[in-house]
Amino acid sequence: VAAGIKGAAATGKKGVAPSGKRPARNDVALIVSDRPASAAAVFTTNKVKAAPVRLAMKKIRSGQARAIVVNSGNANACTGARGMEDARVTADFAAGALGINAGEVLVASTGVIGEPLPMDRLVRGVLDAALVLDGSVEDVARAIMTTDTVPKVSARTLIIGGKRVTLTGIAKGSGMIAPNMATMLCFLVTDAAVEPKALDTMLRRAVGRSFNRITVDGDRSTNDTAMILANGAAGNRAINLRSADLPKLQDAMNRVTWELSRMIAADGEGASRLVEVYVKNARTESDAEKAAMAIANSMLVKTAVYGRDANWGRILAAAGYSAAVVREEKASIFINRVKVASAGMSTGRDKAAAREMDSGDIVITLDLGLGSGEARVMTCDLTEKYIVINAQYRT
Amino acid sequence: VAAGIKGAAATGKKGVAPSGKRPARNDVALIVSDRPASAAAVFTTNKVKAAPVRLAMKKIRSGQARAIVVNSGNANACTGARGMEDARVTADFAAGALGINAGEVLVASTGVIGEPLPMDRLVRGVLDAALVLDGSVEDVARAIMTTDTVPKVSARTLIIGGKRVTLTGIAKGSGMIAPNMATMLCFLVTDAAVEPKALDTMLRRAVGRSFNRITVDGDRSTNDTAMILANGAAGNRAINLRSADLPKLQDAMNRVTWELSRMIAADGEGASRLVEVYVKNARTESDAEKAAMAIANSMLVKTAVYGRDANWGRILAAAGYSAAVVREEKASIFINRVKVASAGMSTGRDKAAAREMDSGDIVITLDLGLGSGEARVMTCDLTEKYIVINAQYRT
Repeated sequence: VAAGIKGAAATGKKGVAPSGKRPARNDVALIVSDRPASAAAVFTTNKVKAAPVRLAMKKIRSGQARAIVVNSGNANACTGARGMEDARVTADFAAGALGINAGEVLVASTGVIGEPLPMDRLVRGVLDAALVLDGSVEDVARAIMTTDTVPKVSARTLIIGGKRVTLTGIAKGSGMIAPNMATMLCFLVTDAAVEPKALDTMLRRAVGRSFNRITVDGDRSTNDTAMILANGAAGNRAINLRSADLPKLQDAMNRVTWELSRMIAADGEGASRLVEVYVKNARTESDAEKAAMAIANSMLVKTAVYGRDANWGRILAAAGYSAAVVREEKASIFINRVKVASAGMSTGRDKAAAREMDSGDIVITLDLGLGSGEARVMTCDLTEKYIVINAQYRT
Repeated sequence: VAAGIKGAAATGKKGVAPSGKRPARNDVALIVSDRPASAAAVFTTNKVKAAPVRLAMKKIRSGQARAIVVNSGNANACTGARGMEDARVTADFAAGALGINAGEVLVASTGVIGEPLPMDRLVRGVLDAALVLDGSVEDVARAIMTTDTVPKVSARTLIIGGKRVTLTGIAKGSGMIAPNMATMLCFLVTDAAVEPKALDTMLRRAVGRSFNRITVDGDRSTNDTAMILANGAAGNRAINLRSADLPKLQDAMNRVTWELSRMIAADGEGASRLVEVYVKNARTESDAEKAAMAIANSMLVKTAVYGRDANWGRILAAAGYSAAVVREEKASIFINRVKVASAGMSTGRDKAAAREMDSGDIVITLDLGLGSGEARVMTCDLTEKYIVINAQYRT
């Protein structure tokens, strides 16, 4: 883990989630830097934003922060003025417990929408976490989970200006995932020194190529947040937008966020297969992205993958109703390396393709034959389990 | 049924669908007018269009037709030059069997994408149907079904210019349903006399308020088609765009297409509940439509309905990520008449709302409190059965 950064997980006695909805487990996490850090964040584009998102949007303008409080189980969204007050009190309380300024504490929440935070329990959790501050990265990653089945952690170590630098990331998300980071939380910490403006730019680039390129069900949430703290404990000369070292750290950030994205798609609610949709030779990159998103979001494509049916007609039809230019007579489709359609028609190799689907995760490639635009989107198949999970769990 | 119009259903020996995929049953339908008729049609907006759609788009320009050949089981989509030739041969063959011009025969197909039509079987079915021409409306409606569980028929009788006029419609569709008429076929026949231009205008209006306002899974197909024949056998003076009688027939057409739409949504693959999403007081009508569509397409909303969970947070979140203007503090949400959210916050009446969901089909009302735009969209809940149907059946 990055030097000078600690984390802890705890829970209020009965948990933060509405009672009876979930077994009590750690559902409050704290991430703290032992010194002031540069901070940046990217938030949901949903017009209905949770209170912690609105609060963090204001605080992040300073480009500085030292701590992040996260709770799972309750989104503190659609909770009106009380919700804003609760988010503020949470930050203030954590600041008091940690002996830092309230302006240095960011908050994030995930879980059920429309119920007020049980402040007594949450505050207890924050206090417990603040007193200990000795959790492992995995402990913290577990405490931010909702319907996730596994904690998601990724890290890289690199040398910048002769100094050893670590970048560690955790994320949660498995349903309600769509571009623009739906119901997705990601927290990155690094001991590199980075100027706030450079940090913001790098985070936006990394998110654009990772969390904005995964989709489970096309729903975008009220709470999505990706945050990064960079505390400079590594002792490198601070990276700015013109630093020769920026691309190196950017690359590490891209890899960490892409790995976390992949873990989220693979943990898609009820998923049995991770699916990469790769659209190439589209008229433009934007066209490639639109076609890839339409395919990745198509319930018919996703159920076909679940049925191990190389149903390329559904793939081409999804591209056809996206806003991308599609000329079927130019299009080829591959399941892994098996070409199932050529010039918009069957190659008769559906059975070989079905065997690919049966043997593991797959790459669907659509070659539109119209230009040089390309895009990759990660998704998963759609199974009965998704229905069961979402008919029962409240988000 | 409209005077002077007959229908028949038949099948090639083993059916038109790829062998082994479905039990053999009637899968070829013929609709024939005993005299020339005005004709109009609306087609899918998918850029990947099936061969019969491309052929019918050309033929309909004349504004005249006498017969429609429909097959289920095979979409004749993504079948290249051979597919176009097959569609043409089908129309020519039917024209020969009926003793009319090939230019007067329209074709439509629905079913699996990407496999060539088994022409020997299809031609046999067309011939059998043409020889008899004594099917009931329900027989014909059954022959165009794919994953539909019930045939869909609606009719109205009215007086126009002192003459008794009948309008009869049949439709198919249950999955891959989305605005712009995805995998939906609708055939309307009337014995009213209507000029082609007026018929086209009326059909577009009716479709815009019915088939374009239902959604099951957001997928739009390659084959969607709504067609109407108006043969004038009733003997009324032909309706044109300025006729005082136009609104009366328009009203009947709106009702018939709305009823058929409702039947399609209610028969949504695996559905257990019909759901009407009503957005009102949006900034504009377009905003209302966008918000209603986002809610109706949200997998999280649809699974919540299946779970009988009045999860209004998901409803507001879906409106929030649509392109509509949403200010949560202005929004109210109702499940039937139970107000579950007011000023963007819980009213604490979730349990009463859940009881409404348990007792039958529901209306979700979102009052955005911003203007006077409104829109209604029909959809259904999302259940495990949808997954099973679409993982197994090839479209």
